[in-house]
Order: sequence, then structure tokens, then C-alpha cells
Amino acid sequence: MNRFNGYHILSTDSFDKKSLLFLLDISQELKERLKSEGSLSLLKGKILATLFFEPSTRTRLSFETAMIRLGGQVITVEQGDSSSIKKGESLEDMSRVVSAYCDTIVMRHPEPYSVRKFSTNASVPVINAGDGTNQHPTQSLLDLFTIRSEKTKIDGLSIGFLGDLKNGRTVHSLIHILKKFDVTLTFISHNNLKLPETYIKNLTENGIKIKETENLEEAIKELDVLYVTRVQKERFTDESEYLKVKDKYHINNKLLTQAKKDLCILHPLPRLDEISTEVDTGPNAKYFNQAQNGLYIRMAILSLILGKYKKN
Amino acid sequence: MNRFNGYHILSTDSFDKKSLLFLLDISQELKERLKSEGSLSLLKGKILATLFFEPSTRTRLSFETAMIRLGGQVITVEQGDSSSIKKGESLEDMSRVVSAYCDTIVMRHPEPYSVRKFSTNASVPVINAGDGTNQHPTQSLLDLFTIRSEKTKIDGLSIGFLGDLKNGRTVHSLIHILKKFDVTLTFISHNNLKLPETYIKNLTENGIKIKETENLEEAIKELDVLYVTRVQKERFTDESEYLKVKDKYHINNKLLTQAKKDLCILHPLPRLDEISTEVDTGPNAKYFNQAQNGLYIRMAILSLILGKYKKN
Amino acid sequence: MNRFNGYHILSTDSFDKKSLLFLLDISQELKERLKSEGSLSLLKGKILATLFFEPSTRTRLSFETAMIRLGGQVITVEQGDSSSIKKGESLEDMSRVVSAYCDTIVMRHPEPYSVRKFSTNASVPVINAGDGTNQHPTQSLLDLFTIRSEKTKIDGLSIGFLGDLKNGRTVHSLIHILKKFDVTLTFISHNNLKLPETYIKNLTENGIKIKETENLEEAIKELDVLYVTRVQKERFTDESEYLKVKDKYHINNKLLTQAKKDLCILHPLPRLDEISTEVDTGPNAKYFNQAQNGLYIRMAILSLILGKYKKN
Repeated sequence: MNRFNGYHILSTDSFDKKSLLFLLDISQELKERLKSEGSLSLLKGKILATLFFEPSTRTRLSFETAMIRLGGQVITVEQGDSSSIKKGESLEDMSRVVSAYCDTIVMRHPEPYSVRKFSTNASVPVINAGDGTNQHPTQSLLDLFTIRSEKTKIDGLSIGFLGDLKNGRTVHSLIHILKKFDVTLTFISHNNLKLPETYIKNLTENGIKIKETENLEEAIKELDVLYVTRVQKERFTDESEYLKVKDKYHINNKLLTQAKKDLCILHPLPRLDEISTEVDTGPNAKYFNQAQNGLYIRMAILSLILGKYKKN
Repeated sequence: MNRFNGYHILSTDSFDKKSLLFLLDISQELKERLKSEGSLSLLKGKILATLFFEPSTRTRLSFETAMIRLGGQVITVEQGDSSSIKKGESLEDMSRVVSAYCDTIVMRHPEPYSVRKFSTNASVPVINAGDGTNQHPTQSLLDLFTIRSEKTKIDGLSIGFLGDLKNGRTVHSLIHILKKFDVTLTFISHNNLKLPETYIKNLTENGIKIKETENLEEAIKELDVLYVTRVQKERFTDESEYLKVKDKYHINNKLLTQAKKDLCILHPLPRLDEISTEVDTGPNAKYFNQAQNGLYIRMAILSLILGKYKKN
Repeated sequence: MNRFNGYHILSTDSFDKKSLLFLLDISQELKERLKSEGSLSLLKGKILATLFFEPSTRTRLSFETAMIRLGGQVITVEQGDSSSIKKGESLEDMSRVVSAYCDTIVMRHPEPYSVRKFSTNASVPVINAGDGTNQHPTQSLLDLFTIRSEKTKIDGLSIGFLGDLKNGRTVHSLIHILKKFDVTLTFISHNNLKLPETYIKNLTENGIKIKETENLEEAIKELDVLYVTRVQKERFTDESEYLKVKDKYHINNKLLTQAKKDLCILHPLPRLDEISTEVDTGPNAKYFNQAQNGLYIRMAILSLILGKYKKN
């Protein structure tokens, strides 16, 4: 049964394990249908409005492509900061108005919980495409989809996280989902960028086996999946501190000789130099597949919330 | 007969009462067809170019949705200020070039009469979506459509205008249309924001019964329709003056106990706090319907100027 | 045979005379089919991504219209400078990601050779829509198409270039193509804006008859085609120097009494006052046809690189 029909997608909190696996199955089905049929017509006559109050090429384009590949159409606000907002209009009013022009809305906004606020008055389903430091649910879902696609399962995996574990929204969201599975999580970071204590506590309470370390060379040996993130310059007030922390870890082919042959390396992108480009052509680099998988997850979500997909 | 076929829509001056009613009828027909058929194909194969030299989410998106719901396609310039204009190209040259790429053009530009100038060399019909302080004809038409939809008629109504009557483009345009009907108009405003004398004179010459007052509590009792507008901060050089004037009038539920049960409250949006949000859920709030009606008026105009609609 | 199928269009260097004529033929066919059929469906189900890291209304809209007239769909980045780029993402990474969302990419970027760099990792054909001072191949191709359309041939023509021959990208590109034909080229410019010596040398080596002069009145008498360009203010550090040079040449009706009756005047647009508007309505002004021809050349290229067109 489609439990997404008519619902907003604001965070990953509301998904239980069964819903998550259902969503991955639909994404996989749509991936295969797209491959064999070229483009679909499930959303023919439907309009998606993408409202971006903070630019994001990758996310916006992948939602728009998802809609078009499903036979739908798109209207877009690429630079939302310059319009009605400036005139002081509330998100709740804007929501009522834009709802009248489309069948579903994808919104990105720099302020935490703004998309939830916007959705309150919306008469069509709203998808959160990132609300500041809070949530970006479709990113976590595509991460999960990629892990299952590459490793054929999720339960039983040993998954490492590397980089800025303190501030990284994608890390926090993915952890939140993974705790519903039987996984071992390893957190590898500079001492200043460790996963906040509340997350550690929450994971332990959920019975997740966790490890924390600064030693990547050692930790990488046991991992099935390594999720790498960018250390964001804008988080540091002191540039020298940033440079020190940033250059602590690099994934390159030499390091990978220590890893399992079938280690799956992920990265939410954009990457700077956390991963050497020499890794790109090897068998472990899965981050571009991951970006592509965003298309299938978004196709699944769009067709489900619009009630146009039934799993066979 | 379709007297709009091939014509520009630059101002509401050219519409006689018969044309106005014709347009409202087509809009109503399209509203009903859209409801029953989902989307139409009257403009299949046609391209609308939306050129916005000043951002306007609401107006642009509603035109684009109108085009798509009619089966057409859209190309758009969301941030027109940054392109050819900068290179010094004349509006007349740009018009010839863009005309070659589409079947109709919707344009917004901060300069009064710029859209008329642009239309001179256009080889396709051009719709003015707002040229500074001058005109925004589709706004007035959707206002009129909403009044007739909500009250089933226009002749015989008592219609009030509240807010910045001195500078408000939407007020001036709507007055201009309403003077072709048999209506009573009441102008309620702070003394500094009164309707300019030329408008008063013109209305009187056209035989329209008018009243002017500062007393909203008294005036509201007799109204069938109240058209509320925002007091625009940018019109004041002195902020304290702005604050004094802005806070003079507020529509809330307490005030509405003085009004007719079926008073229809309109607002071109965006609103600040002229109307309390508690009013939104009551029976008098029609401003969100009004915004939605923009879709039907724009569908009617697009299909008429492209010669694709015949009234039965 | 379609030798364009699957290829990037980065510069005009790779086109031999046969390929050029093939492309002009396809463009002409599509122009005629568009006229008779309204819109085509050769690219149904295909998505074009337009990525503009520098705004260009004319070029972007004409590519988007070309795609839509062929039955395809478009996703667009109008203001590319504000997004991922800012986060430091490499063009090569962005290319892999965007490739996953579309079937072909049109890109403009202010940096020379950036589009080539971007194309390296692209898994779909990439079209250069201008990379700074380097190339803008579809402009030259539409110039060539216009010359042949207006004069029915290219070999044997006497073609003049006027304006900023030193810096003008469009002039340099078109020369590059014309040297593959049997033409006489006349370069008319202020002494400070002469065609660079390397171009002169290269043309001479290719057996092209050339003339250089400052005297427009004299030179214009023998020309079949006159290609006029804008003197770009941004090339001058001294404004008075700019004004002196800019005002040296003006095309007006008086001057045209000296020219052949069927002189074909071209201009890549936008124009400032190099050509008086009185010329626009005369028989020699072909620059707006030229802009329109961009549509047919771009339709031809899109359908050819996507393997959807076979010449009969």
C-alpha cells in the first residue's frame, strides 16, 4: 500500500524500516523501467514547482529531471531570495498561493524548519530539499539506496563516516536512518569535528554498535562502506585551523590497499580534495553512481506522494 | 467573436464592458474545463517566453502554469536585469529577437511604458505583467473575475478600497475597469494616501457614485467588497511617518462584526499585517481564491491572443 | 551519414567543408519542416540541460526553443555563478553529475577552454555556447547559414568585416570557417582595432584573398556581405579613446547608396548604434533573420548529436 500518497516529505524521522525498504524497492523498479522505456508518463499533466531560496544546481536539476522523466512539467524559482520574500510575505501566505499553481512543491531554504512552516498551509504535498542545518531527506534516502544497490543489503554492514561529523547535515540524517538497521558504525574524524555526544547516546540506546577513532588507516580495514564528507571552510573562524583539519585525511589509491577489495566509497558531493581523483576510475568509487541514484529516489517520491504508483 | 486574437495586452484601457465580460466568461469556462479534464491541449506546440526584468514569483509562476495547463511550453528569463540589457541592447531589438523564438511573450519591467515600447517591434502578442507604476492589466482582470465569481454580478455592488490609494497601481487599474460598471466606490485611507484628484474627477465624470472617508469602522457596514492594499514602505522617506500610516487600519474578526455577513475581502498580495491571519479561515477571506483566479484569467488571455479559443 | 552523432560541439575547428555544408542542409530542412509542421517530435523524451555561468538571454532562449520545437524538454541554470561553483566543485565533477540528469548539455562559461574541460568527463554530448574569448561555434554556424540563405552560395562572395576586429570572438570564429571557402575578405577597422597579424598570416597561407582598410565608404562598394560588430567599451581603459573609436563608423541609408543593391548586412547583436535603425526596414538588413536562423542551426545540431536525424 502507498502510505506516501498526499503526504509532505519533510524529514526522515517519520519513516519506519518497512517504509524505507518500500521506497527503495519503488526506486529500483523505476530505475529499471526508465532504462527499458526511456521515459515514463506516470505524472503526465502534473506540475512540480521547485522553489530554491538558496541555490543548489545538483538538487534542483535532479528533481526537475525526475519530474520530466515521469512525464510531468516543471515551473521553477532559481533565485528565490530576490522576490516576494523581499516584500515581507510570510512563508505561509506564499505557500497558499504557489499551491494553487502546481501539484507538488520542492523547496530549499537556508532557515531550519522553514520548509515545515511553509508546508502548514500548502494544499499540495511539499518536499524538503534542504532547510539549512536541519534536514535534506532525499539525500539520506539516496545514500541508503546506493548502499543497498552496491552491497545488495543493509543489515550486517560495517559503515564508516569520515570528515566533519560535527556539522555535517548529511551525516546526521543518514545516521538517523541507519539506526533502524542492524549495522556497525565507525566515526573517523579530527578531534574537533567529532560526532556530537547526543548522536552517540541515541545510537547506543538504539542498540547500534559504534566505534570512534582518529585513525583512518586502521579503521578502513574493516569497512564495507566509507561515507566521506567535505570539511566546510565556512564553519571555521580561524583559517589556519581549517587548513590543519582539512588536510588530515585523504583518500587515495595507496590508502585503499589497506581496505577491503569491495569497499564502497560514498560522498554527497561537491568534493574538494578529500578524495583524490585517481580513485574515481577504480572499483571503489561509487559517489557518482550515488549522485545518479538521486534521480530514482526522487522519481519514486514524486510518483508516490502524487498517488500515481502502486507496487506490484 | 474573439477580438483578442493576435493583440497585445498592454493596459486595460482598450477593453470595453463587452470585452471584459467575454473574457470573464472564457475564464470561467476554462476553470470548469480544467477541473473536469485535468489539463487541456489548446496550446499544444506553442511556446511562451516569460521575461522578468524585475522578479515576481507569483505573477511569473501563474503565467507559466497557465501556459502548461493549456498544453503549451515555457522558456523563461527569471533575472532579466543581468543579461543583454547590460550590454546596452534596446528593448526594440530584443523584442525582434525573442519574438523569433516563441509564440507569445509575457514581460515585467520596472520602467513605465517599457512593455509598450518592447511590443512595438514584436512579431508575436505581448502581455504586460507589470511595467513599474503604470499598468498590470491581468491583475485587474483577475480582481474583476473574483468579484463576479464571489458576488455573481458586478453592477449594483458597493466596493471599498483601503490602504495606499495614492500610489497603489492595482487600485488605480481596478478603478479604471470598474468605472465601466454601475458600482458605488468608497475610498478609505489615511489623509496622506488619498486617491489622487484626477481619479476622483474622472470617476465623477463617468457617473460613478463615490465616497471618501478615513473612518473604516463606519464605511465597512455598507460594503459588498473590500479591496485592501499594502502600504508600501518604499514610498516614504520618513520611517516614523510610514509606521504611523501603516498601523492606522487593521482588518480583524472584531471589525468584521460590523460588516455584512457576505462581505468579500480581497487583497492583491503579498500582505504584511493589514489583514490579521485570524480572518483567513473565515467566510469573508477571498484573497487566496483571488490569487488562484489569476490562473484562469491568464489561461483565457493566452488562449485568446493565440487564437485558440472560441466561445461556444 | 551523420558524423555528429554522440560528439561534443566545442569549436568550429573540427568541421571540414563537407560537414559544414551537411549541417547547413539539415538546418534548412528543419527550417522548412518547422514551417510546415509547426513543431516536431524528433527529440521526444530527451532532456537538454542549459548551464549558463554567464547570462545570455538570446543564446540560452534560442537553444531552449530549439529543443522544445524538436519535442524535447529543458532544465536550466540561468545564474550558474551562484551555486556549486562557489562551493569549489571542479567542472569535471559537475560534468559527471549533470550528465546523469540529461541527454545533452549546452554550456556558457566566462573562462576560455572551460567548456572543453567540462566535456572531458561528460557522458552526454556537450555544446559550447561561448567560453569567454575563445569560441562560440553555433554563432559562426548561424552566420554561415545566413550568408548562404541570403546569397544562395558562399564560394565567390566578397565579405567585409567592420568594427572591433582585434577582440571580436564572432569575427575570429567566422573567419576561421570562411577560409575553407573561396571568398574574398575585406577588413575595415580603426587602426587600433585591426585584425591580429596571426589571423592575416593564416588566411594568406590558406590562399584567401584579403584587403585591409580604414575607408568604409570605398570598401563597401564591392561587398556582397558586410559583417558589422560592436566596439566593446569594456576593452578600453580610457573612455575618451573608446568614444573616438566607437564613433568612427556608422551604417546608415546614406552610406548604403554607395553599396551594391543586394548587400547583405549582418550583425551578431546586441547592437548599440553601429547601424542606424533606419536601415532595419530596408532590403539590406539581415541581422534579425540572422538571429532567427540561430534556431534552425541549433535544432540541427541538437538532433544530429543525439543521433535523431538522417539526411534523406
